[in-house]
Order: sequence, then C-alpha cells, then structure tokens
Amino acid sequence: MATSAYPEIMHAVRDQEPLIQCLTNGVVMDITANVILAIGASPAMCDTSTEAGDFAQVASGVLINAGTPSNEQYAGMRAAVAGANEAGTPWVLDPVACGGLKERTRFQRSLIADKPHAIRGNASEIIALANLDENAGGGRGVDSADEAEAAIPAARNLAERTGGIVGISGATDIIVSQNRITKITSGHPLMQKVIGTGCSLGAVVAAYLSVGADPHDAVVAAHAHHSAAGAKAAETASAPGSYKLAWVDALYALTAEELDRYAQIEEA
Amino acid sequence: MATSAYPEIMHAVRDQEPLIQCLTNGVVMDITANVILAIGASPAMCDTSTEAGDFAQVASGVLINAGTPSNEQYAGMRAAVAGANEAGTPWVLDPVACGGLKERTRFQRSLIADKPHAIRGNASEIIALANLDENAGGGRGVDSADEAEAAIPAARNLAERTGGIVGISGATDIIVSQNRITKITSGHPLMQKVIGTGCSLGAVVAAYLSVGADPHDAVVAAHAHHSAAGAKAAETASAPGSYKLAWVDALYALTAEELDRYAQIEEA
Amino acid sequence: MATSAYPEIMHAVRDQEPLIQCLTNGVVMDITANVILAIGASPAMCDTSTEAGDFAQVASGVLINAGTPSNEQYAGMRAAVAGANEAGTPWVLDPVACGGLKERTRFQRSLIADKPHAIRGNASEIIALANLDENAGGGRGVDSADEAEAAIPAARNLAERTGGIVGISGATDIIVSQNRITKITSGHPLMQKVIGTGCSLGAVVAAYLSVGADPHDAVVAAHAHHSAAGAKAAETASAPGSYKLAWVDALYALTAEELDRYAQIEEA
Repeated sequence: MATSAYPEIMHAVRDQEPLIQCLTNGVVMDITANVILAIGASPAMCDTSTEAGDFAQVASGVLINAGTPSNEQYAGMRAAVAGANEAGTPWVLDPVACGGLKERTRFQRSLIADKPHAIRGNASEIIALANLDENAGGGRGVDSADEAEAAIPAARNLAERTGGIVGISGATDIIVSQNRITKITSGHPLMQKVIGTGCSLGAVVAAYLSVGADPHDAVVAAHAHHSAAGAKAAETASAPGSYKLAWVDALYALTAEELDRYAQIEEA
Repeated sequence: MATSAYPEIMHAVRDQEPLIQCLTNGVVMDITANVILAIGASPAMCDTSTEAGDFAQVASGVLINAGTPSNEQYAGMRAAVAGANEAGTPWVLDPVACGGLKERTRFQRSLIADKPHAIRGNASEIIALANLDENAGGGRGVDSADEAEAAIPAARNLAERTGGIVGISGATDIIVSQNRITKITSGHPLMQKVIGTGCSLGAVVAAYLSVGADPHDAVVAAHAHHSAAGAKAAETASAPGSYKLAWVDALYALTAEELDRYAQIEEA
Repeated sequence: MATSAYPEIMHAVRDQEPLIQCLTNGVVMDITANVILAIGASPAMCDTSTEAGDFAQVASGVLINAGTPSNEQYAGMRAAVAGANEAGTPWVLDPVACGGLKERTRFQRSLIADKPHAIRGNASEIIALANLDENAGGGRGVDSADEAEAAIPAARNLAERTGGIVGISGATDIIVSQNRITKITSGHPLMQKVIGTGCSLGAVVAAYLSVGADPHDAVVAAHAHHSAAGAKAAETASAPGSYKLAWVDALYALTAEELDRYAQIEEA
C-alpha cells in the first residue's frame, strides 16, 4: 500500500464506469446520482422488492441507506443484500440516524450479520450501530454529535464482525479495518450545508470497492476524492448554492495532483 | 412587536439550529432540505408511519406537505401530527393543491381539527382548505389562480378555528392571525420558475416557529427572509438555473440590513 | 411541415403554460419539475392510485416513467393512463431500463396496448420494448448500449402498433412515426453526466404534444429544444455541476434563432 494507490483507484473508477445500485432515501437521490456520474460511475436507484435482488446481481456495487424507508423499500433492501451476497457484489451500509429511531436501528443492526463490505457513517451512527454501549449515540438525525475518534472502538468491533471496512466521517475521516487505521483530513464545513454530501459518500465508497483494488485502500481513496473535492470547492464558493455546484464540478475534474494536495492521508 | 423583531428571529434560527422534520412530497425534498440548511436549521425527512410519531417528539418543528402522498406517508403524517401535539412541537400544514384533488383535500381539511400552529399556501389552496364556498378554489395543482387578498376571509376563518397563523403566498404575502394582518412585499417572479420555492417556505415557517418568538412575528419573519432572498437573487441571476443557486446563497448569507432592504413589511 | 414549425411550437408551450402530470421516478422528480418550469409549462407530480386518474383528466399532458416504481405507483400509472385516454390527454411512455428488469419490462410492454401518444427512450430501451428479438436490449440500467439507428425497426413497429410517435435518444436523436423519420443532431456529451436529462425529455415531449401542433413536429421540436439547450450550455460550462445550471438557463431563454443554430434537423 502506497499513497500512490489512491489516484490509481480514482482513475480505475473513471475507466471502468461501474454500475452502482443505490437503495437510498428520497431526499438525496438526485445529488447521489449526480455525484456517482461526476466520479465517472453510473447510478441506478432500483429499490423495489421485486427488482432490487435481480439488479444487485448485475450491479458492480450496492449502497443500502435507510434514510426514509417505506416498508416496500425495506423489503427491497433485504432483497438487494441477498442478491449482492449471492453474486459477490460489494455492498455498503450507511446507518443513517442509527440509534435515534427504533425501527431503522433494528433494521440496520440486523444487516451486520449479512457482512457489508463497508460501513460509512458519522461517529454517533457507528457507535449506535455497534451497540457496545446502550446509552451511546443518536437522536438528532444525521448530524454527528460525537467525535470521530471516540467511535474507533465501535468501528473496530464492526470491522471484526463483518470482515469489512468502516469509515467514520468527521472533520477528520477515520477508516478502520481489522488491522489498519487511516486518517483523512480534508473537506470543508460548507459540506454540512449541502444535503446529501454524507449520504452520497456511501455510494462513492460502493463505486470504489467495485474496481478490484485493496478494499481498505479503496475506502480511503473514496473518502479522499469526496473530501478533496470539498476542499477545492471552497476556494471558489462561500455559500451553499454555489458550493454544491463547485463541489460536483471538482468531483468530476479532480486530478491526481489535486487529490494529493487537498487531502492529507496518514496511517495511524 | 417592532420590525426589528424580524432580524432577531432570523438570527435565533441560525443560533439555535432547530431540527425540522419535513413530511413532504418527493419532488421538493432536495430543495427543502437545502433551504433548511441554508437558513441555519437542520432537516430530517422522517415520514414513515413507524418512525414519524416518535421523531415529532424530538423535532423542534414539523412540516406536513401532502404533495405526493402514498398511503404509508398519510399514516406517517397522522402519526407526526399526533406526536407533535403531544410534545407541544409547532407544526405547519401546507395544503398543496387543496381543492383540486378529492383525497388530499379531505385529508388536509381533516387536519384543521388538529390545530396546526401555522398554515402556508397559495390563495386558492387557503380558500379551498377553509371550504367556506364549495365552488371556490383549486384544480390547477400548485399554481395560485386567485389573488391573495381574496383569501383573507378564508385565512381569518382558519386562524379562528386553529388558533394559529395563516400565511397566504402571492406577489404580496399576507399573514393572518385572529387579531392581526401583516403584508410582505418582496420576492421575484423567477421564484415561480424554480420548483419547491413555495413548498420549502412551509419548512422555513416551521423552523421560525420553533425558536420561541411571537408566532405571528415568526411567520412574518420566515416569509420575509424567504422572499428577501428571492429579491436579492434576482440582482445577479435572470434564468432559473442560476437563480436557484443565487437564492440558496442569499438565504444563507442574508443580513439584517438586507432583510429590511429587500422586504417591505406593513401592518394592515 | 417546415422547420419554422419548431420555434412556433416552442413559443406555443411558453404561451399556453400546459399543466404536465409526471408520474416519474424519485431520482429525477426535482430536475424534471425544474425543466418543465424552464420551458414555460407547469409540473405536477401527482402519482398515487387514488388521485392520478382524476388528475390526468385535467392535465394537459401526462408522462409515465417507471424508473423506481413502487406497487402503489404502478397502480397510479395505470389509473393515469386510463384517465388520460378517457379525456383524450396526450401521454408519453418512457420505458426506463426496459429489457433489463423483468417486472418493469412486463409493465412497460403492457402499456403499448393503451396506445401512448409518444414513446421516448434510448435505443436499447426501444428495442426491448418492441420485443421483436428476445435477445436484444437492456441490462445496464438507463445507459444506451445500442446505437439509435439500430432501433429504427423497433421504433417503426411501435409507431404502427400505437399510432404514436417514437423518439430514440442518442448522439443523433431519431423521431419515428408511421410515415416519417426525422433526425436531430445536437446536445453534448456532458448531458450524460447530469441525472435526469433523459428522463426530463419525456416530460418535455408531453408538454409539446399538448399545444395542438402536428404530433410528429411536436416531438421533433421537444427534442430540438432540449438538446439545443444542451449544446448551448456547453459553451459556458465544462463540468457537470455548472453544466446542469447552464442547461436549465438555456432551456428557459432559448430563442428561435438559437434553436435553429444549435440543432441540426433533417428528414430521412
């Protein structure tokens, strides 16, 4: 593993144009699809119970984000997970608002047994998902109250139970797998003022996992690309409408040199 | 009540970052969430029957907008209203396309008995919701055919039945409560060319109602902030794509001085 | 039919402001509504089984796009088609991802018997919808794998079975009816990097069909307006965030002279 692996994975996504199936919440479908297109992949929001399982077998990667789940979408998510696991398709769990709401928390925790290839969430969501301490976590929707560092034990626990990679999003993102921890410092506070920046990251992780690189490296590269574009966007935009546009443009056009310049990546 | 109350409420929203639960239609979820973030609040689109009631008890404010309601979302809206009323959470009814479609009209009228803290709609929707004249109102979706002035009796009737505040949107917005009428002239015709400007206003009203100010003042301030940003945006943009961006930027950055300059507010 | 018919139809849409009911997938609702507003029409996303049929009787045009269909939306689509046909409202079928997924393919093919006034899709979708060759078509979501030319026999078949107009989207769009084929060369590759450019075209076609012009001319004009704006946008934008904004602006402001300049239209 060398840091030069990251731009290579970014270019592999652009070359391979992986098809990413996103079972995600209604509020972020538009920005998620545009982000997936901007990074060079191809989105499909197929999420019904009758189609999601079949689609997961032809998709390159799958995102499960139960942000506004209807009963039909829950069934679709279970079908997609089953289809992905049968076909060996990498899939990502984004435990949106885990801990704050009973039904989705139960659903999200139940998916750990299905061994997601990656989990991506804020510190409070990762802590609530791991459920090591009943008193921890959630309650304020998708905003992260805890600090990323505090979620490392929960992330390590989840990595051990799933064999996958866990990304904790924060001012510094922390990527945790069974034997490795990597920290990425980048992004900009305005990312919090645009809906779907966090949710779209889960889809980007699915795309990066699909191109055959080392999974830990792939999750690091996904976070680095996503947040380096956020740092670059802040150079030309200072309010959320124009920032969103600049961020999508930056995701599309980011160079290997910019990835290196805007994202500080270090092994812990 | 002095006009200086309005910028104070705008700043209170930015300081308190209220959590606004939006049960709204799929077409405007993205822009509504981005508008809520831009004014300094925090959005959550939790709308399922199993979660919406619990969430309304922890939310700072709730929006009910039955623009594209599935049966599951109707159940979620009833649960959210019950939860909000139990917890004393202010909630807003946006009677989208009331009068034009039977099922939603029946649903929207039934919510009057639950006493929404505020109602926000176009003149035809307010008239149809009050149902004083069976022949009045609706039929063309969300566009307002009638003039705001003509809806004042209906708005007054709704204010009396609910004890809440009624906002009639138009070229001049009219805010009606039991003992007071306030008119706000601002905005720009290009707002009609961007989807969700009206629907997002309901969510902004919910945010403004949540910070502890006088409710009538809060609804006036919400309308003033929303439309003043629309007036400001028109200074730099003349087509809807760039106008939408400029409007979101203006919502985020609007100063007290600009609120005063771009919105003419008068008591009637 | 003269090419001067096309700007006239574009202006007729702006003058008549037709009300377009869009039963479409959640990911493109926002951009579809904004595109409909930008061309001067009025969108309504009414898609529930209890309301869609009534609404189709008052709408000027209807779009059916089963991109992320729930069971309730399927029922709404059937109700809308029945209502549209009863009232003589023109309606458009967009067979998203036809051929790649069993349930939607069955649903989309079943609608041919209801005789859509127009069908709009990529080559692979048109081929799969016509179902002339069981081995052809789909499997990669909404991206078009086949070339538009290869889909002409399938389009001709569909035109004969429905009596309607079939638009095949590609680098060159091909409009096929029983006795006429027209080709439109315009647009820009960046359109593929913005979600909903294709899906919104189906709604634009519905708007154009509603203003009383010759249906084949109307479908040509819809494609020409849509893609000429795409060509114009590429003059000022080179990445998808800014390109999307520029495209919406161009849809709104496109002149008759620009329609002629940016879109090459020829009869085959």
